[in-house]
Amino acid sequence: MADTRLIFASAAAVLVASAAMAADEPALLAEARQVFQPLPKQLSTAEATLGNERIKLGRMLFFDPRLTVDGNVSCATCHQPALYGADGLSKSIGVQQRPHPRNAPTVLNSGLNTIVHWRGDRDSLEDQASKALQSPITNGLPDIAAALDRLKRIPGYAPLFNAAFPGDAAPLNVGNVANAISAYERTLLTPAPFDAYLVGDADALSPSARRGLASFINIGCSACHNGVGIGGSIYQKFGIVEDYWTATGSQTIDKGRADVTKDPADLYVFRAPSLRNVAMTAPYFHDGSVSMLSDAVRIMARVQLGSKLSDPEVNDIVAFLESLTGELPPAFATAPILTPAAVTAGQH
Amino acid sequence: MADTRLIFASAAAVLVASAAMAADEPALLAEARQVFQPLPKQLSTAEATLGNERIKLGRMLFFDPRLTVDGNVSCATCHQPALYGADGLSKSIGVQQRPHPRNAPTVLNSGLNTIVHWRGDRDSLEDQASKALQSPITNGLPDIAAALDRLKRIPGYAPLFNAAFPGDAAPLNVGNVANAISAYERTLLTPAPFDAYLVGDADALSPSARRGLASFINIGCSACHNGVGIGGSIYQKFGIVEDYWTATGSQTIDKGRADVTKDPADLYVFRAPSLRNVAMTAPYFHDGSVSMLSDAVRIMARVQLGSKLSDPEVNDIVAFLESLTGELPPAFATAPILTPAAVTAGQH
Repeated sequence: MADTRLIFASAAAVLVASAAMAADEPALLAEARQVFQPLPKQLSTAEATLGNERIKLGRMLFFDPRLTVDGNVSCATCHQPALYGADGLSKSIGVQQRPHPRNAPTVLNSGLNTIVHWRGDRDSLEDQASKALQSPITNGLPDIAAALDRLKRIPGYAPLFNAAFPGDAAPLNVGNVANAISAYERTLLTPAPFDAYLVGDADALSPSARRGLASFINIGCSACHNGVGIGGSIYQKFGIVEDYWTATGSQTIDKGRADVTKDPADLYVFRAPSLRNVAMTAPYFHDGSVSMLSDAVRIMARVQLGSKLSDPEVNDIVAFLESLTGELPPAFATAPILTPAAVTAGQH
Repeated sequence: MADTRLIFASAAAVLVASAAMAADEPALLAEARQVFQPLPKQLSTAEATLGNERIKLGRMLFFDPRLTVDGNVSCATCHQPALYGADGLSKSIGVQQRPHPRNAPTVLNSGLNTIVHWRGDRDSLEDQASKALQSPITNGLPDIAAALDRLKRIPGYAPLFNAAFPGDAAPLNVGNVANAISAYERTLLTPAPFDAYLVGDADALSPSARRGLASFINIGCSACHNGVGIGGSIYQKFGIVEDYWTATGSQTIDKGRADVTKDPADLYVFRAPSLRNVAMTAPYFHDGSVSMLSDAVRIMARVQLGSKLSDPEVNDIVAFLESLTGELPPAFATAPILTPAAVTAGQH
């Protein structure tokens, strides 16, 4: 937490200095470029090479419900193309109606997040996918062997694993399921009008969105929601000025990262999420307690920054947030064709 | 049932006569044209006009999980693009883990079926959609008012209903939900190699598929699986020569249409389904009791026609059935973008 607070404090200092430049368009762009970065064309890491075969396999696995206990839940159940990679629910519903503890963030641009899950309790996208495959809520099969057995029963997967992981003697394993899904997820980037703005097209944002951008920086939102993800890389206490659960009407109090680290300093601490596509992915916050984006903006300003925003300020910030809505990647909007094979009762 | 048996008997008589022509390619095509028809370019009925606005709305409704009790089941849950409009399950799973009584047929080409549902207990696609919207298994909301209330809470639907049903004073009603979904479903046609064959391209079928077509006609499969849908329009008793549940290993005996009509003559009577895309939509039969297409072919021949097929005959018939696999319509393969709005707890 110490590091995060330092970033928060120093960023806030920079932003106070920039307030006077809000009406000055070139200065606004220059300021924005110090705080945010446009999307890269693609993401690849040494640990997770984005080979085409791996992406193709990962896309199939992402959409395949047959990997889970009753064969009716896939990654795409909580991360639906029609709902911009989220599910529209406050808290997701897993296999056999089992409740997820928190709101499903969109899978879009998830490769940009340096913190994975609301409480940072996953090390990487690979770790997330691997744990999901073994989770009683997400998967429900008795063990990883049963999940892999499902894959082995579907003709067509074995050659795809061989092609995606040519160096492996036995490529159909849990690590490679996670590698393939993560490789696919890293391709799910959504270039948005704000990216065009950052590379110099001032007209990519409406005047209202530009005013909103200035406010977003000046009142301090960008202290946490910054960088290429416009968030996703900083922990912050939810409820700096006021208790969050009072402001949001949350029905349960979530201690956040403190339950993971057992450090009292992490009480009510969560990842400040990426705001890319936020206008398409209601409801909001870790518990999905707020349905309207304008309400979420008001609550954030009040509870985190002690600011009471005017209606025009809220409207402008929402206009800016809408400029973070990108186009769905075709490989996400369009479902892959899965190798046909039935999941019949008693196959686990 | 009397009509159906008459059709069966007369078709069988024609088919015996055609057996000698099986190796004669022009004769095979001529014979096939008497039994089957190629897909039309589009389907439209006087009752269900396929206006673009109606189709667009129906597509959104089809993919929208927020119409159901917990906001996590849509039409696309049991009719998934990645699984060719079916779900890969023996019997589908509805809201809150409630079991469906029978296997989900693919939604693709469902506009061709003159019999709706396995037992013909729906009058039309509109009736099916309307009853699904009110079903405790499919929807789960307490009444139709609650389902319509969900729609009214999602901004963006009201103008779409106005545009799709310009003559209606209050267009957001259950009939129009059903009309829109059905209009969309009628667009889900999948032209296949066999359609190209029927309009004169003999090479659209492999030699094995052509042999399979000849067998399919000659042994009598096409007595029920004929017409433009290659089935979907005739009732037939499942188990003419042997009990079906013994042959399939079914765990429950389903009385079929007799439970609908209360007519003992309808005992074990079901719709002979369309075989379009059958190779992509395992498992098979009303109870999804058989996983492999080759097994389904063997069982059908034995139980319905008293024929024991050789392995080459089965392989050829499967090759013919694979020629019924069409291309997914882009408006089905690709998800629509839904108007964002959260379904939060307690909204029904």
